[in-house]
Amino acid sequence: MIDLYTWKTPNGRKPVIALEELQLPYVVHPVDITRDEQFLPDFVALSPNSKIPAMVDGENSVTLFESGAILQYLAEKTGKLLPASGAARYTTLQWLNWQVGGIGPMFGQLGFFANRAKERMPLAIDRYLTESNRLLDVLEQRLSQSVYVGSDDYSIADIAIYPWVVAAITNNPTLLSDARAKRPSMDRWMTKLAERPGVIKGMDVLQDTSVS
Amino acid sequence: MIDLYTWKTPNGRKPVIALEELQLPYVVHPVDITRDEQFLPDFVALSPNSKIPAMVDGENSVTLFESGAILQYLAEKTGKLLPASGAARYTTLQWLNWQVGGIGPMFGQLGFFANRAKERMPLAIDRYLTESNRLLDVLEQRLSQSVYVGSDDYSIADIAIYPWVVAAITNNPTLLSDARAKRPSMDRWMTKLAERPGVIKGMDVLQDTSVS
Repeated sequence: MIDLYTWKTPNGRKPVIALEELQLPYVVHPVDITRDEQFLPDFVALSPNSKIPAMVDGENSVTLFESGAILQYLAEKTGKLLPASGAARYTTLQWLNWQVGGIGPMFGQLGFFANRAKERMPLAIDRYLTESNRLLDVLEQRLSQSVYVGSDDYSIADIAIYPWVVAAITNNPTLLSDARAKRPSMDRWMTKLAERPGVIKGMDVLQDTSVS
Repeated sequence: MIDLYTWKTPNGRKPVIALEELQLPYVVHPVDITRDEQFLPDFVALSPNSKIPAMVDGENSVTLFESGAILQYLAEKTGKLLPASGAARYTTLQWLNWQVGGIGPMFGQLGFFANRAKERMPLAIDRYLTESNRLLDVLEQRLSQSVYVGSDDYSIADIAIYPWVVAAITNNPTLLSDARAKRPSMDRWMTKLAERPGVIKGMDVLQDTSVS
């Protein structure tokens, strides 16, 4: 059984989507970051970086934080959602890394300066809006050449990227109002992912906060 | 033969250190980002995200961008610097992801707002200085419990993290003046890494810009 410590954020949804797609049994333990629960000692013992998600797989005695590493672990545990070898394996890991180091942090900074900062800093908003649009253009170009992001097969790269693109567009309805309309390949890919039962369940995780 | 397209930045040094440690033959092709060469069509064809480094391994017909993916590729090509299985494999990948998604982007934003932004934005500097110090504290705690970052064995996690810590301290001599002195485990690890011939060569890459 896998214990997943997570919250309803893009990084928190990634492992839930993967667990659903892989049909692995798991239990969700909510870590409410709006109440700073990521700083509680029991959670920090699992995730010394004080970030969700974290995962414990009792079967293999593996405790992990960092959503990108958790996705790769689940893929290699099952032999699915990531090719075991060859160029497609590394192209998939390349786009997974692109999410972890690019769209995750940059969309995150846009959200902070556009929606949560105590002071309005137009230069900072512009910096992250420009970078976010550039990254979405890179994604559009990739999806104009490939069915899915990593390769023509659905993979952990799609699972990593999709929740971040949804969150960026949802949380910045004015700044990114035409993000999908002007990127037809990305729009097609988003529509296809939104129909997958595993994606639906992952995106819905903890929407009912009575779950515990 | 491996062709590496890179520059003298933390991400650009990571694959050079790995290639040196693994004693793989390679050729460095400079991509001078101070002259915007990362936007030239020949480079964008290799790296559609317009970021260095990028790598071509003719032996396996693999073309990759994203330094984290390149490190994992080189480790798996040789069977070194990353355990092939078991908990230590995923702990190593976890800390590699922590660099890619955490200290890379956050140290990068600190450098921008503290040293390069057109306008002084104290709240933004404070945001990234606080987060950079928090990340350095997480690293210190890890290195107080483990010889190297990923496990007790030297790995691609160390290779990913070291150039970023050196750059942060070097580029922010005032803001991070006591970063090493107050973190003895990190200081011990930095001293040990600085003595490795592969690290020395990787950190020196393209310091002589007449190389081509």
